[in-house]
Amino acid sequence: MYQAIAWIDGALRLLDQRQLPHETVYLDYYTPEEVATAIREMVVRGAPSIGITAAYGMALAAQRAPDAASLQVAAACLRAARPTAVNLFWAVDRMLVAAQPVLDDPAALPAALLAEAHVIAELERANNLAIGQHALPLVPEGAHFIHHCNTGPLATGEIGTALGVIWAAHQAGKRVHVYVDETRPRLQGARLTTWELQRMGIPHTLIVDGAAAHIMRTRQVDLCVVGCDRVAANGDTANKIGTYALALAAHVHGVPFYVVGPTTSIDMALPTGDDIAIEERAAEEVTQVGTCSITPEGVQVANIAFDVTPARYITAIITERGVVYPPFTKNLTGF
Amino acid sequence: MYQAIAWIDGALRLLDQRQLPHETVYLDYYTPEEVATAIREMVVRGAPSIGITAAYGMALAAQRAPDAASLQVAAACLRAARPTAVNLFWAVDRMLVAAQPVLDDPAALPAALLAEAHVIAELERANNLAIGQHALPLVPEGAHFIHHCNTGPLATGEIGTALGVIWAAHQAGKRVHVYVDETRPRLQGARLTTWELQRMGIPHTLIVDGAAAHIMRTRQVDLCVVGCDRVAANGDTANKIGTYALALAAHVHGVPFYVVGPTTSIDMALPTGDDIAIEERAAEEVTQVGTCSITPEGVQVANIAFDVTPARYITAIITERGVVYPPFTKNLTGF
Repeated sequence: MYQAIAWIDGALRLLDQRQLPHETVYLDYYTPEEVATAIREMVVRGAPSIGITAAYGMALAAQRAPDAASLQVAAACLRAARPTAVNLFWAVDRMLVAAQPVLDDPAALPAALLAEAHVIAELERANNLAIGQHALPLVPEGAHFIHHCNTGPLATGEIGTALGVIWAAHQAGKRVHVYVDETRPRLQGARLTTWELQRMGIPHTLIVDGAAAHIMRTRQVDLCVVGCDRVAANGDTANKIGTYALALAAHVHGVPFYVVGPTTSIDMALPTGDDIAIEERAAEEVTQVGTCSITPEGVQVANIAFDVTPARYITAIITERGVVYPPFTKNLTGF
Repeated sequence: MYQAIAWIDGALRLLDQRQLPHETVYLDYYTPEEVATAIREMVVRGAPSIGITAAYGMALAAQRAPDAASLQVAAACLRAARPTAVNLFWAVDRMLVAAQPVLDDPAALPAALLAEAHVIAELERANNLAIGQHALPLVPEGAHFIHHCNTGPLATGEIGTALGVIWAAHQAGKRVHVYVDETRPRLQGARLTTWELQRMGIPHTLIVDGAAAHIMRTRQVDLCVVGCDRVAANGDTANKIGTYALALAAHVHGVPFYVVGPTTSIDMALPTGDDIAIEERAAEEVTQVGTCSITPEGVQVANIAFDVTPARYITAIITERGVVYPPFTKNLTGF
């Protein structure tokens, strides 16, 4: 199989997701600054994977300079890598808390932070297993899914969130089929989700993002599943651009629309999705595909990496603690 | 400037739209079979342009073999090129009618058919000018459009349908700005509409298709304009894949959604959009961009080239005879 994130001999090894599906290249990282760059340049992506990677970035920091000041510098550097996924901030904060008891013990600090990074990775793995089990009753036999972006082992460390729901149903012996949104501009669906579904042996059909609504109107679609980069306290969900359009189409067609993610992606400090920072990325992600330029010179681009789906278009949020239905403001509180 | 379709020295010259925006290559055609291949391979595309091109294909047939049998063979060949745009069938039928009085006069037939092809080209040009004028009152000063696919001079011979509405408003001195859907899989928006808007000097911003709904939720959008490949008698409209998703998003956000096209794109013989033949094209249009492959080997693809937008999501249909509002079944009849 493959491992998106691994700790090997004192280094963080990442599968370079930019080169998939054509090349399987692993890159080793030794400093938190390098790790922040890897997150920013999307060697690794997906909210849970970003959190796990940042945790190991903090472990690398402690290994190189086991003192409070260096950890704070590393934390700031990692936090600045990407703005939207809350798992990044959650993981860095958790690593700083774990450092607290041994902050004045340079001999103990590296081991404590490495142990905590392993705990975070293992926690997300356990979260995904639980998510898949909670979701099982929601997946009918012979289900046709629509899935947006990539939410499998690459995006989450292991198993997957939305893709984990599909995998769990498949493992439980249900017949399933997935319409895979290609997910422009970075084509995580076309490049990564198809690659993961091939390895899982799950039947799937690739479509362009603009076709999902037409598929719902003309073919059987039983449910949509998407991941989440940040869920606000009222259920509003930031996720990969195109998620909101998919949710609207599902709403019109009466297709259940499930947001799937660990509670580490829920940010109870934000009352609504209006407060979520939305990343805009370089124009080249839209104007170039691989080495091919697709536009005239000098075209102006709005490359908005995420959108916010208002809670009213979300059927339920599937987490490791169970399935949360509206009203989310009430049902997410104290969850 | 540039001319998508031209008759030069007894040959049909087409601007090869597959090579835009990077290369401006003109190809000359001498037989209806070559013209049918050019339509199928999308050297030329856009419903009105396909009609005009097919008309010249019939003129080429008459030039090579001025007899009824050859014309029928050419007509069958051209009709089989693409299934969805009704302009193709309309133009071929009209050419056959024009041939009728001179069918037994090999000396007169070529000139008669060439004259009729010129008439069809000129008719679409006049249609587009009229469309732009009828649309003017619908475009507010400072309007922000969302535009899907390509509907400019390349797609229509000259001026444009949906893009013609934008051009007419710009020519009339209104300040306008266009969000350009890139329009996967063939990227007509990213490659062609940006190229045409640059030449028209109209400000525009390229977005991925999945971002249009988010743009409507978070920024000012005053109207959506799209072309049409075939409009049924009840107003249901077949157009480039992604149109339906855009219409749903416009509906939810209360943004007027205008279908723009000549009455040659209206097929009163079809009661509803359910009866429109929808073309599926090769997987490679999705799995490859330029020379770059974006998916794993062997991935299954549904490359559905068009979708049908039900009439209830269409604010009005803008034609050369005026703006048609619902109920379309009543208001298109005898129009």
